[in-house]
Amino acid sequence: MEDLKKQIAFITEIDKLKYILRKTKLINSDRQENDAEHSWHLAMMTIVLAGHSNEPIDVLKVLKMVLIHDIVEIDSGDIFLYDTSKNHTNTEEETKAAQRIFGILPTEQAQELIAVWEEFELGQSAEAKFAKTMDRLEPLLQNASNNGGTWKEFDVPYQTVHDKKKVMALGSSEIWKYAEGILNDSVEKGILKK
Amino acid sequence: MEDLKKQIAFITEIDKLKYILRKTKLINSDRQENDAEHSWHLAMMTIVLAGHSNEPIDVLKVLKMVLIHDIVEIDSGDIFLYDTSKNHTNTEEETKAAQRIFGILPTEQAQELIAVWEEFELGQSAEAKFAKTMDRLEPLLQNASNNGGTWKEFDVPYQTVHDKKKVMALGSSEIWKYAEGILNDSVEKGILKK
Repeated sequence: MEDLKKQIAFITEIDKLKYILRKTKLINSDRQENDAEHSWHLAMMTIVLAGHSNEPIDVLKVLKMVLIHDIVEIDSGDIFLYDTSKNHTNTEEETKAAQRIFGILPTEQAQELIAVWEEFELGQSAEAKFAKTMDRLEPLLQNASNNGGTWKEFDVPYQTVHDKKKVMALGSSEIWKYAEGILNDSVEKGILKK
Repeated sequence: MEDLKKQIAFITEIDKLKYILRKTKLINSDRQENDAEHSWHLAMMTIVLAGHSNEPIDVLKVLKMVLIHDIVEIDSGDIFLYDTSKNHTNTEEETKAAQRIFGILPTEQAQELIAVWEEFELGQSAEAKFAKTMDRLEPLLQNASNNGGTWKEFDVPYQTVHDKKKVMALGSSEIWKYAEGILNDSVEKGILKK
């Protein structure tokens, strides 16, 4: 019962992820996406797209990664992919957030989820590479459907987008090839400037 | 590439789940929860609480269930648990929605996800029972944290809540025992009338 109490406290705490807004907007919408619905979308994408991974992956592990990958942002906030003024790797602030939030759980479970989160951040395992491919693909689909979305709003040119997105190839060269096609179409449509 | 095209079309379509509002509000909030963030929360609860299942469960299967369980509501809308005027079992409208939405996917994948959804709706496998326990627990935690939430708003008495929630015991008698404690506390606090 002591474990269950801690687990319920954690479940209550992470409700706050629903308040953390991303820059990207929902498809065909002016509403910004929040981290919880973003994480749900990545999980659905993982279920549907896992077969395109370059390497064999443990789908359950990838699901854990994408479901928890932004939980630290409850404390540290969302960092926009194209914000060059901020550090995008596992910062001290994020590590502290992981310790505090996952630390609400029973010790063993806290350690497991912190390890999964660190593996995602490191981006070196097959699972982390695929999870990051999902994380890069979703806003690309949103921007392409939103007349350029944050590319236009923040004046981000093709080459910068391409540079930030090409890591997708590490998780799935097939999906990256498809995504490159969308970027090229976006340039042709005039919603992403070359 | 043909499969990938269909999968991306499905991923784009289900963005709409973020617009489907539930009656229940976020913890400490006046904002209604949407189906996508609700599904994310159930997935996180599954990861954290799976050890309390009465029976051994395939966690990956439960995750698939909770992540997709409300997707049909893109077409058929959310049905409030305490709405006695509506049928709560797998209606014809929901079956049509499942066929249309999952049908966007390559055939084999569509069939797999429809089968997972039907298994959840049927509620008989160990995985479905646990998934339903998650689905009943989340709004209970929200209402208990929201000064009664929808129990107060729609004047739902203790006995009705108890009757609707007791199926949780099928998935986890431990979690149901804990949840009953929350219901009793809520009565004591005067936020759920007996």
